[in-house]
Amino acid sequence: MSGTDIKYSFGLWTVGWQAQDPFGDATRTALDPAESVRKLADIGAWGFTFHDNDVFPFDADDADRRARIDSVKKAADETGLVIEMVTTNTFTHPMFKDGAFTSNNRGVRRFGLRKILRNVDLAAELGAQTFVMWGGREGVEYDNSKDLHAAHARYAEGIDTVAAYIKDRGYDIRIALEPKPNEPRGDIFLPSIGHALALIATLDNGDIVGLNPETGHEQMATLNYTHGLALALYAGKLFHIDLNGQHGPKYDQDLVFGHGDLLSAFFTVDMLENGFPNGGPRYEGARHFDYKPSRTEGPDGVWDSARANIETYTLLAKKSSEYRADPEVQKAFEHAGIFELGESTLAEGETFEQFLADPSTREEFDVDAAAEREYGLVALHQLALKHLIG
Amino acid sequence: MSGTDIKYSFGLWTVGWQAQDPFGDATRTALDPAESVRKLADIGAWGFTFHDNDVFPFDADDADRRARIDSVKKAADETGLVIEMVTTNTFTHPMFKDGAFTSNNRGVRRFGLRKILRNVDLAAELGAQTFVMWGGREGVEYDNSKDLHAAHARYAEGIDTVAAYIKDRGYDIRIALEPKPNEPRGDIFLPSIGHALALIATLDNGDIVGLNPETGHEQMATLNYTHGLALALYAGKLFHIDLNGQHGPKYDQDLVFGHGDLLSAFFTVDMLENGFPNGGPRYEGARHFDYKPSRTEGPDGVWDSARANIETYTLLAKKSSEYRADPEVQKAFEHAGIFELGESTLAEGETFEQFLADPSTREEFDVDAAAEREYGLVALHQLALKHLIG
Amino acid sequence: MSGTDIKYSFGLWTVGWQAQDPFGDATRTALDPAESVRKLADIGAWGFTFHDNDVFPFDADDADRRARIDSVKKAADETGLVIEMVTTNTFTHPMFKDGAFTSNNRGVRRFGLRKILRNVDLAAELGAQTFVMWGGREGVEYDNSKDLHAAHARYAEGIDTVAAYIKDRGYDIRIALEPKPNEPRGDIFLPSIGHALALIATLDNGDIVGLNPETGHEQMATLNYTHGLALALYAGKLFHIDLNGQHGPKYDQDLVFGHGDLLSAFFTVDMLENGFPNGGPRYEGARHFDYKPSRTEGPDGVWDSARANIETYTLLAKKSSEYRADPEVQKAFEHAGIFELGESTLAEGETFEQFLADPSTREEFDVDAAAEREYGLVALHQLALKHLIG
Amino acid sequence: MSGTDIKYSFGLWTVGWQAQDPFGDATRTALDPAESVRKLADIGAWGFTFHDNDVFPFDADDADRRARIDSVKKAADETGLVIEMVTTNTFTHPMFKDGAFTSNNRGVRRFGLRKILRNVDLAAELGAQTFVMWGGREGVEYDNSKDLHAAHARYAEGIDTVAAYIKDRGYDIRIALEPKPNEPRGDIFLPSIGHALALIATLDNGDIVGLNPETGHEQMATLNYTHGLALALYAGKLFHIDLNGQHGPKYDQDLVFGHGDLLSAFFTVDMLENGFPNGGPRYEGARHFDYKPSRTEGPDGVWDSARANIETYTLLAKKSSEYRADPEVQKAFEHAGIFELGESTLAEGETFEQFLADPSTREEFDVDAAAEREYGLVALHQLALKHLIG
Repeated sequence: MSGTDIKYSFGLWTVGWQAQDPFGDATRTALDPAESVRKLADIGAWGFTFHDNDVFPFDADDADRRARIDSVKKAADETGLVIEMVTTNTFTHPMFKDGAFTSNNRGVRRFGLRKILRNVDLAAELGAQTFVMWGGREGVEYDNSKDLHAAHARYAEGIDTVAAYIKDRGYDIRIALEPKPNEPRGDIFLPSIGHALALIATLDNGDIVGLNPETGHEQMATLNYTHGLALALYAGKLFHIDLNGQHGPKYDQDLVFGHGDLLSAFFTVDMLENGFPNGGPRYEGARHFDYKPSRTEGPDGVWDSARANIETYTLLAKKSSEYRADPEVQKAFEHAGIFELGESTLAEGETFEQFLADPSTREEFDVDAAAEREYGLVALHQLALKHLIG
Repeated sequence: MSGTDIKYSFGLWTVGWQAQDPFGDATRTALDPAESVRKLADIGAWGFTFHDNDVFPFDADDADRRARIDSVKKAADETGLVIEMVTTNTFTHPMFKDGAFTSNNRGVRRFGLRKILRNVDLAAELGAQTFVMWGGREGVEYDNSKDLHAAHARYAEGIDTVAAYIKDRGYDIRIALEPKPNEPRGDIFLPSIGHALALIATLDNGDIVGLNPETGHEQMATLNYTHGLALALYAGKLFHIDLNGQHGPKYDQDLVFGHGDLLSAFFTVDMLENGFPNGGPRYEGARHFDYKPSRTEGPDGVWDSARANIETYTLLAKKSSEYRADPEVQKAFEHAGIFELGESTLAEGETFEQFLADPSTREEFDVDAAAEREYGLVALHQLALKHLIG
Repeated sequence: MSGTDIKYSFGLWTVGWQAQDPFGDATRTALDPAESVRKLADIGAWGFTFHDNDVFPFDADDADRRARIDSVKKAADETGLVIEMVTTNTFTHPMFKDGAFTSNNRGVRRFGLRKILRNVDLAAELGAQTFVMWGGREGVEYDNSKDLHAAHARYAEGIDTVAAYIKDRGYDIRIALEPKPNEPRGDIFLPSIGHALALIATLDNGDIVGLNPETGHEQMATLNYTHGLALALYAGKLFHIDLNGQHGPKYDQDLVFGHGDLLSAFFTVDMLENGFPNGGPRYEGARHFDYKPSRTEGPDGVWDSARANIETYTLLAKKSSEYRADPEVQKAFEHAGIFELGESTLAEGETFEQFLADPSTREEFDVDAAAEREYGLVALHQLALKHLIG
Repeated sequence: MSGTDIKYSFGLWTVGWQAQDPFGDATRTALDPAESVRKLADIGAWGFTFHDNDVFPFDADDADRRARIDSVKKAADETGLVIEMVTTNTFTHPMFKDGAFTSNNRGVRRFGLRKILRNVDLAAELGAQTFVMWGGREGVEYDNSKDLHAAHARYAEGIDTVAAYIKDRGYDIRIALEPKPNEPRGDIFLPSIGHALALIATLDNGDIVGLNPETGHEQMATLNYTHGLALALYAGKLFHIDLNGQHGPKYDQDLVFGHGDLLSAFFTVDMLENGFPNGGPRYEGARHFDYKPSRTEGPDGVWDSARANIETYTLLAKKSSEYRADPEVQKAFEHAGIFELGESTLAEGETFEQFLADPSTREEFDVDAAAEREYGLVALHQLALKHLIG
């Protein structure tokens, strides 16, 4: 896939963020969503996404809701931009202060479920094939604020019910859960890619439930985003991605992609664009940015920063493609045993008896030679770095 | 379960740690494993655990290996201590420098598998019912050091093969994976409880594979250990635990249990000893400590610190039991909606049509009242704190 | 100082926080500042503090400003509560989006300075003896957003100018800088106690400039708050404190004091209330809480949480007093060498020649005995833990 | 300074690290220090540095010590490499288990001081102009293990005594303290650049005491290394640097420079090589690498990784020079107000009365215009990123 063919997508809430933060008032005025769609088309986006309440207010009446949806739809039609994903806001309104699917208040849980199902219908109407669920308020500040088993049970029930509804309605939609370790809650349930995959494995309708991992969210927990994506791909569950930048464990920064850990971003792009060295599953969805234009920025900075995401990803795609095509890199892969890791540890059909009788697995194994083997891993990493900045 | 009935267990490598660290030489001499077993019995332990090479050296010949095993077995028999878990060292020897199950060197992978299978036989012989696997070297410093898909495939293959072997041999053993985010590798595969559960869900023989989560390992990634245990219990996979102390994301401290985040330790014990408020699965295994006597300590400090684990856990068990029995706490649970979270969100048998037609889920829901509901969560937390220190 | 004599103080912005966060709307209505003063008196506070714009809006005209100040003053007079500290809001208004004293816009720097000087006059009028400066916006997201030398020079100029103004006016006021590592900026200048002390040492008027360290701010950078306080005391610069709770490096949680790292809180209180074992400087100011009632809480929870700060601190003061009075603890101090560390390393008047000629410093020193010395540090820590929870 | 003129230096302990870690045995054999010096010369180093016990063992007799020193000296003479810094090992031997200058054992403190003074003499003999002191064991695992005031007093006494000795002997040497937040102790005193500067400000002989900040050590505490260097330069205290790589708060990784946070490394090099945009103090010392060849590496990897440090720094120096010379960047600096921050906030000689009477500081200041000003900070950052990877 060449740089120009990459399907870039943005959340309307990204460029639309008015930059109110915990210690400061908004520095920017609200944007008209339809206008944002048009500008996204101008800067080269292929698609866009939104929460219900990015397009219409929480308390919009039906007519207002419809008019605002139609306005965005019209902009999509006119620009050719794809509405590739829709998601639901179950975190802004004070009623969700202790959660939506895991609120201790059953009425809130039911209201939240209804809000989400209504938005599934909207997603289906608009042709979105991915329905993201970020449980930003599903968590606690104090470990005794919830029955932690019941919380997981209710969370699972909620997701399973939405998945069942999608199947019941025959929609061509898959759910993608978005993990996050904390903020706005002290500890959020499903704090990482792993935890979300684990819950999915317990669902009745888990076949249409996967992940939407966000770069910064994993990095807030000191976890390696690219490794997490690899596990999600291994599990067949990488349904969507949220790309951005972060500087380790601190508040959720939502920087431009690449403006946080640049080397990690390089390897993320390398995996997404070039796949695994020994083959394997590929991510097929949009390259979706979930970032925030910094609060210092005015209207120009909003679009400068949006463009920077595309520009950086495209550059990294080009660099990583050259890196993988470099014969010296392929030789270093060979030397490092990258391809050797593609071979199964047991031979095909090898029985335990055969394995245990093989003296090369213990009695005759040259332990010292194995200990002394040079893999050249630093040299290989330096090759990548030189492709990136050389 | 009263404090005195709690089944406490220690790894032989804990009290036996000679306190060599990355910047300093050992401050203590080696302990005889059998002698450690006897001392553990003296301080009130119920069981103990070990790595193969805690008992016999990597390069022990068969006679030496047998003699050393028998010495420990004899101490177990004499003291009545249970060998409840056995684990394998696939991280100390230089040959494992780039991993065991995920080494790029297939020979190392096969050697590692053979070493583990041999140790499974030993575990079975000694009656251990849990076989822990900590993949401390299964990871990288650089994202291009391994094919990340192949690494997960090989890791899964290795675990699945060991599980298949256990079944093949008819052993009464379950595998417990121990996640860790980093150290000694820059990023370790299966960095958290979630990631390990996710991989287990992909295995052919995952039914006998669960977890051995360690307090400090989750906290090194800023994750909530108690929440992680709750997810593992929800997934039916909490097979074993490693209790210790840690002060957030830094090197692996392995402090005495409770000497890190004390409030978190209280809620861990509350969950282990008293279960979830609305019922649910319980952890039935040993209360196992995986800590290190600080390098400042001499022989006395080794046993002072071992005792401190038991003493602290027992105190927390008592405190948490009083906390749960306090009528004021139960009232605060009620007020907070702790029991309400035990109710399913949908009514039993409720159809989508019934749910969507229920006006209390949207049209007639009192949003403002929900937003204003007082849950009393800080007051409830303060009740716990007062039970802990009051 | 007995628990009941402790001078507790609260910021009006703490109980007054309406609980708007980056992902959610306010869950509480505004409180009348004078009413908050009266309620703080009811729960046992000795004093209170505020930012200018906690009492009057940014754009208040002079009459409005005066009326609102008088209302708070009246409440202070009626309740006997002391206005012990005043601080200035130079972070909420969008004009401060890139800083106040370090804004790249010189006009903003001058406006910010004027706003602060005006507030110094108010502090003096109200009898506050401490003037806190938290430079929440003095920082960057990107390292090239500012000339990092000029930024430090401007920061120093701003602080020095305020200090000079205080001296010029003859006010009985000291400045206390409040460090914070990040949030709301990606990296804030003066990120820790140490950095702030370092800048103070470069000032012309540094004699009246000290610190206001906040528990959570240091812990957000994985730093030990109690150690930081000890350094500030050593430097003669602990002018004020902000007590609260935090769970390591994540967003600024502002939990109730003790609701984060409880053992650390115990040692903080022990140091504040009981001083250093070998004597030394003491902190004489208010025990000031800078916390936020969780967003889940309604009006009751606001005051439950305010009370919880006082209750927890008072409990920890009592526990730490008993701990220090315990003869077993004193014996453990002796054994550990706590008092020995109070002795200078060189003898009084010892010359280099005398020292170098002393064979006990090398030739005759028993290295092995020193290596084997038991300090009993884990046992001592366990004694503290038992005093805390026993 | 062009890339080829940069004075690169390495610690002998870097390439000489045998790769023993907390969970694994050494993977490499010991190197002869003199041989390492020759290899460092081959790869383009200008200088080298060492701890006393990198060259001779802790218990070497005088003749052995002298022979080993002479061997290294000879290698330095033959290669022309400069011994630019010497440092002392007060952390490996078990006697230092609870500290050296802050050990609770006064005998250990005196032994440690004597060891350091002897090494100062060696540094002077060898012409080293910088004497680094890293207090790796000066800390605690438990807050009550030391009197925290006495600990700071003893630490200060120790440093001051060494500085006094240097002056007394007339040596042309400056001390450089190396901060680190933790590892191998739970919390180390002087955990950051700021804390070390703060202690220096209290010393009698602080004029010859400055800093040796290490990239990874600041980043282990989530702090911005480049900002820290800027503060050290502002305080006139950047005497030496330790460059390497780290991935945020986890164990001390000591990666190759640039192999951690690459964008941060770019801005570090930009500041070191190109200075501050408005001028100011410059760092004049060696570009010193304190990294560890990964444990996966054999003898080839040791030198591959050593070279990678030089190669990466040289590349970043070139890139940053082009970045600063780019007219578009200079224009973006102007637009961002980078140069405006170089202007003092008060006019020269401006009095308080003049300032307060200036209506442009309040009454007539256009607050809205200030709030709306576009600084173009994201665009400027993107320019840097494009220079780095474009």
